Amino acid sequence: MAKKDSIITLSHGSGGIESQKLITELFYHYLEGCVIGASEDAGVGEIKDKCAISTDGYTISPLFFPGGDIGKLSVCGSCNDVAMMGAKPKYLTASFMIEEGFLIEDLKKIIESFSQTLKESDTKLISGDTKVLPKGTLDKVFITTTAIGEFLYPHLQMSAFKIPQDSCILVSGEIGNHGAVIYSKREEISLHSTLKSDCALLYPMLEELFKNNIQIYALRDATRGGIASVLNEWANTSNIGIEIQEESLPIRDEVRGICELLGFEAYHLANEGMCVLAISKEDSTKALDILKQSKLGKNAAIIGHTTATNSKKVVLKTTYGAKRFLDYPSGELLPRIC
Amino acid sequence: MAKKDSIITLSHGSGGIESQKLITELFYHYLEGCVIGASEDAGVGEIKDKCAISTDGYTISPLFFPGGDIGKLSVCGSCNDVAMMGAKPKYLTASFMIEEGFLIEDLKKIIESFSQTLKESDTKLISGDTKVLPKGTLDKVFITTTAIGEFLYPHLQMSAFKIPQDSCILVSGEIGNHGAVIYSKREEISLHSTLKSDCALLYPMLEELFKNNIQIYALRDATRGGIASVLNEWANTSNIGIEIQEESLPIRDEVRGICELLGFEAYHLANEGMCVLAISKEDSTKALDILKQSKLGKNAAIIGHTTATNSKKVVLKTTYGAKRFLDYPSGELLPRIC
Repeated sequence: MAKKDSIITLSHGSGGIESQKLITELFYHYLEGCVIGASEDAGVGEIKDKCAISTDGYTISPLFFPGGDIGKLSVCGSCNDVAMMGAKPKYLTASFMIEEGFLIEDLKKIIESFSQTLKESDTKLISGDTKVLPKGTLDKVFITTTAIGEFLYPHLQMSAFKIPQDSCILVSGEIGNHGAVIYSKREEISLHSTLKSDCALLYPMLEELFKNNIQIYALRDATRGGIASVLNEWANTSNIGIEIQEESLPIRDEVRGICELLGFEAYHLANEGMCVLAISKEDSTKALDILKQSKLGKNAAIIGHTTATNSKKVVLKTTYGAKRFLDYPSGELLPRIC
Repeated sequence: MAKKDSIITLSHGSGGIESQKLITELFYHYLEGCVIGASEDAGVGEIKDKCAISTDGYTISPLFFPGGDIGKLSVCGSCNDVAMMGAKPKYLTASFMIEEGFLIEDLKKIIESFSQTLKESDTKLISGDTKVLPKGTLDKVFITTTAIGEFLYPHLQMSAFKIPQDSCILVSGEIGNHGAVIYSKREEISLHSTLKSDCALLYPMLEELFKNNIQIYALRDATRGGIASVLNEWANTSNIGIEIQEESLPIRDEVRGICELLGFEAYHLANEGMCVLAISKEDSTKALDILKQSKLGKNAAIIGHTTATNSKKVVLKTTYGAKRFLDYPSGELLPRIC
């Protein structure tokens, strides 16, 4: 059994002395240099005119996985969501919910990785909250973050509602790595490979596209529901058809293997450091070159195009020339994946 | 047993068709008129220069209680936190985590009350997220909200670090109602009274003070840890002593009764629509008058003053003239209270 001073207790969340200690000695310690507004009810930020705001709750099982953990995930996830609007993440808020009995050592690891990712992202923690809940009322740790981003390139006009026909569809990296890693960990499939979650910050890679005035019609990270969800949503909201070439999809052999074993399609799996882009035909090759120059985008690919039909359908052209619909994922696909 | 279409299932959280349905038919339905940025990764807001940002995770048991529910609470809580900085809440984000099997009827009630409070607050929902978790991995529903507020009265200079000696300490309403209600519900103490949680939006009442140029040194809502936590924190951060007159504390008889029964002090109990103010002696009577003019502030009171000592202690002068320390709450006080 764990010693009492090595675990989180309810008194750590009571708002009294023990709470103050936890916040000061653990959170503030690791977050040194990236906190503003400590000891007040709210942090005060400066925003030039417009800002992008996005929130997400993170509950992943397992908490630690190859390529990341819930701490890194909770920073990347919300920062990526504001990056999808073309905004540079500037502030982050975080609310931690922790189960009584959770190991302080594990909490340290999570906060360390949270803090590391915050620094990489050049984002400040502007407000935080910690709650401790009685054993059995939540599974280990949930983190909810909200990112607030600034528009440094106000010329960007991306929208899921305005994708024209004959646009190119690109992905910025391999498909399904995150989902495949999480699922194989859960099912205790041993991976004889270096397969890792793609969990990463997308803004630095995307900023190169913004700087170079690439005509991006729409941009979306392919998390829950995978690229299939993004493409179907775009077909619906922009009233277009989308055609995808199966052979152009960058999918690792290990991911294909895991999918075959578990009966999934890679394009339904969650990703945490990969986005889908709708780009003008004229700019698509240049965009691909720019993406490939960054480490994160080295496996970027043009995977298809939008079509003149207003079918609102996504069609997958298989390697053998056959066509089938690439549908929304349906049913109980991978809970607690991101 | 509840019928399948009356409960939340894992597929409601998969990111696929069922998720879209839940969001559109339930969330958007009730939130009509108060959502911006739907169908994009992040909402876009406009902020003039500076903003106050605050986040909090809400997990309360029971979910429904006299005077409110987790939906109302999650709006009031974060809106109040930015109001404590002198900022008017403008945008809110919300992340819902829902346990598989939760009754859709109850979720509707929560979203309805969430939406109602959002409208009262004149705040827009700028980003939302819904996750469904497998049965047993969280207790019913958790909501995390982040409020973003604008400074309409930029002359305000409140800070927990700069409270001078001889300031007056005020409370804006009765003490301990929320905590007493929640605890009596949990312990199944039947209340032969109209005692309700004080759960409410504080900004409209406070704006009257801001408008009237009342010199407010510090302002804090007395949630987890009660007024005792606020006062001790202020004594510490401003390096002052604080003296409180016990007889001036507005505490209802029912709350005194519940405290006696359960061995609590009312000043340790959580409040959700009451704040503590440190105000200049000159302005204190005027401030009290202004507070008492609003429905929410009708029980406001001057409860004490700051002293010249740098003892960092809060002293309670009892009705009988004795003095004792009014300490931080310590230990496992009321988890899941707000």
